[in-house]
Amino acid sequence: MSDEMDIDGVGRLLAPDIVESIDAKRTADVLAAFSELQDAEVAVVLEELDDSRRIVAMRLLPRARAAEVFAYLDHDLKEQIITGLSDDVAAQIFNEMDPDDRIDFFEEAEDDLAQSLLKRMRPAERKETEYLLEYPEESVGREMTPDFLKIQPEWTVQQALDHIRAHGAKAESLDTLYVTDKNNRLINHLRLRRLVLADPNDRVESLLKTTRTTVRINAMADREELVTKMEEYDLPVLPVVDEKDELVGIVTFDDVADVAEEEVTEDMHKMGGLEALDEPYMAASIPTLVRKRGIWLAVLFIGEMFTASAMSLFEHQIAEAIVLALFLPLIISSGGNSGSQATSLIIRAMALGEVTIADWWEVARRELICGLLLGALLGLIGLLRVQLWQWLGLADYTKDYFLVGLTVSISLVGVVTLGTLVGSMLPLILRRLRLDPASVSAPFVATIVDVCGLLIYFGVATVMLGL
Amino acid sequence: MSDEMDIDGVGRLLAPDIVESIDAKRTADVLAAFSELQDAEVAVVLEELDDSRRIVAMRLLPRARAAEVFAYLDHDLKEQIITGLSDDVAAQIFNEMDPDDRIDFFEEAEDDLAQSLLKRMRPAERKETEYLLEYPEESVGREMTPDFLKIQPEWTVQQALDHIRAHGAKAESLDTLYVTDKNNRLINHLRLRRLVLADPNDRVESLLKTTRTTVRINAMADREELVTKMEEYDLPVLPVVDEKDELVGIVTFDDVADVAEEEVTEDMHKMGGLEALDEPYMAASIPTLVRKRGIWLAVLFIGEMFTASAMSLFEHQIAEAIVLALFLPLIISSGGNSGSQATSLIIRAMALGEVTIADWWEVARRELICGLLLGALLGLIGLLRVQLWQWLGLADYTKDYFLVGLTVSISLVGVVTLGTLVGSMLPLILRRLRLDPASVSAPFVATIVDVCGLLIYFGVATVMLGL
Repeated sequence: MSDEMDIDGVGRLLAPDIVESIDAKRTADVLAAFSELQDAEVAVVLEELDDSRRIVAMRLLPRARAAEVFAYLDHDLKEQIITGLSDDVAAQIFNEMDPDDRIDFFEEAEDDLAQSLLKRMRPAERKETEYLLEYPEESVGREMTPDFLKIQPEWTVQQALDHIRAHGAKAESLDTLYVTDKNNRLINHLRLRRLVLADPNDRVESLLKTTRTTVRINAMADREELVTKMEEYDLPVLPVVDEKDELVGIVTFDDVADVAEEEVTEDMHKMGGLEALDEPYMAASIPTLVRKRGIWLAVLFIGEMFTASAMSLFEHQIAEAIVLALFLPLIISSGGNSGSQATSLIIRAMALGEVTIADWWEVARRELICGLLLGALLGLIGLLRVQLWQWLGLADYTKDYFLVGLTVSISLVGVVTLGTLVGSMLPLILRRLRLDPASVSAPFVATIVDVCGLLIYFGVATVMLGL
Repeated sequence: MSDEMDIDGVGRLLAPDIVESIDAKRTADVLAAFSELQDAEVAVVLEELDDSRRIVAMRLLPRARAAEVFAYLDHDLKEQIITGLSDDVAAQIFNEMDPDDRIDFFEEAEDDLAQSLLKRMRPAERKETEYLLEYPEESVGREMTPDFLKIQPEWTVQQALDHIRAHGAKAESLDTLYVTDKNNRLINHLRLRRLVLADPNDRVESLLKTTRTTVRINAMADREELVTKMEEYDLPVLPVVDEKDELVGIVTFDDVADVAEEEVTEDMHKMGGLEALDEPYMAASIPTLVRKRGIWLAVLFIGEMFTASAMSLFEHQIAEAIVLALFLPLIISSGGNSGSQATSLIIRAMALGEVTIADWWEVARRELICGLLLGALLGLIGLLRVQLWQWLGLADYTKDYFLVGLTVSISLVGVVTLGTLVGSMLPLILRRLRLDPASVSAPFVATIVDVCGLLIYFGVATVMLGL
């Protein structure tokens, strides 16, 4: 760790001073304190304040600044602030916001609140918002901003720079400029740096790399593609086009970082065996938490009931050799652990594009070898454990203790190999069936491995101990 | 899904044509085909080619282009190419690379190869590389590039633009310019767009936001801080300073995206119960895979051995009521599942800063309620299952079947509540002890929940069935 303070530290440090200034109604002091902070830091200070002071602070901030700061807050705080402010002040802040940040709020807001805000917003901003909300949820259109600058290929560099100077103030990103034809179709792009580095009398078209097509994305595409595309091409800004290839907006890296974070959270939750939670843990209500977890927990439970049925086939063996029951949890959990290792590896590798369905045979070959080796490792430890405890008198595994140890050991090789194979193949099979591997692998792997693990264990025991 | 082709599709589509041109030695055709592609796309085509053609293609590319394309390849391919090319060609490509991309290669390369490359590189590039390699591994210094532009506060906008035009061609990012004092200390920053939008006769200092400090990071800081800082402040470029606050480099968003991806992969692997794999799955050798998984699998296995010891305490009860053994896997797995749900939730929430150690009491309260509700849900399903199977004659749970059902049901409430509580509290406790919650939670939760789960189950059974 470095000795620098993190952003939360900045917030906690400054909040007390600002509280004092707010309570003493020293408006100038509040504004002076905020003017020394980055937008993200003001947001952290606001998080630290209590509800009523937060509203006061927000009302004091210039509307444009308030709009910038607003974008860094959690949705719950945003809603608290908006309902706390008068409708007109709220609408003024919304007028100043970047269109994509505005959409972020509207997507999660209650219908009544959204309608009342829309009604009070400036006509231009209202129209823009309504237009963006027409794109489907989780589509690229919902993440983009229509505030961008277009330049014409026949302009000179000087003309382009003048145009930017005149109209660029509102654009969200000027780092890349987009060149369109008369019909607004995207032809090419130009980094601002290239324009600045060029001779002012050159023509824009002479600067374009004519042979390469500009990477673009369709507004109706899934927003997951945004993340992949921007990462694969290392782009800070991506132009968004409609089905006629007309430029309709741009997406910037910071919006994509948020999308990527949400997608990772989704995957992690699914791998942990629960429905993805789309709000912060502390903001989620207990009924929501119970619902998101209860569904999968019940599915897993019902799947695991097969173990009870499988076990009932071996009641006789257990009665004959109670000692078998002792190692049951150990064997089952080893299969489960090796399965979840394989599943995590393969799901992540698929998400990164390192493994595709076409690789299934190679994956199966590798996992079979890994499974056998890992199984042998655990089998050896298991065998030693049984012998050692018996010799030390720590446990009595009957007079057949050596055979018991061997049963445990051989079963472990089988169960671990099975877990590894099932855990690695299931995500690939699910992807092939166009199901989401992250969300359904865990329960299937668990159920299959546990039930088959029991069959292996009692099968081996029946042979070894002659039951 | 959209109808657009993804980058891998582009690669597979174009590779056959390029193979043909390479084999027919039609150099101009190869170059023409590559000139229509983005750097990232050329990299994908190279991945599709076999080893010898890949070397030929790389040799044909202009050195500067080859250097750009190189950065998009996996380390294994990079090494194959470099060893395939003559040492001088390889060194020429390295001369043209961005310093941070060069370091990426040197970090993972064999010492011999690195030394032989360094020896052949231009003195300036060699010195730069050696300087960057002096920063500790996983530090910010290793990720930064020293190719950036500084401007002076007393310059006019026109002077600054002229300076950029004269010296900006090599800089990795011109989107943000850094303003330094005479001692090279970082004073402030300026977006290029602001410079372009300004009156050419204005002074640079008049454009600076003097009240806000520029966000910066220390070159010795952990690279994880990079990700947090750039995401919190939504910055595409972050200036890097040394302990004297002198500007030594910049880090751009694409480098950070790679770091973030690696860190997420690490977390996902750890949550899946294995040592993080720091190379692509398909590139990892089988001994590596076995080692990374075997360690944790063995640790988990040894932990789970306590279940065998715990079970031996209840041999008598099992012998009296074999029926108890039937539900053992079901009960144990339910505890494990509820535990891993809670662990995933809390680990992810901590990583996002939504939950801190200070929240432990609130987390415990919420998880206790969730656990009781989820346990009640499973308990109810379990009770119904036992009654139903008995009535339908699908199984015979002895004449005490109602009590057996009740035992299962009550145990489930206890085990699920326990799993939820342990699963949520352990990550917080481990963080408090300054251990990595992601890597050690899984084994501890599994062991504690399984052993305690057995005690609960047989404890309840002993009372209910009077054993």
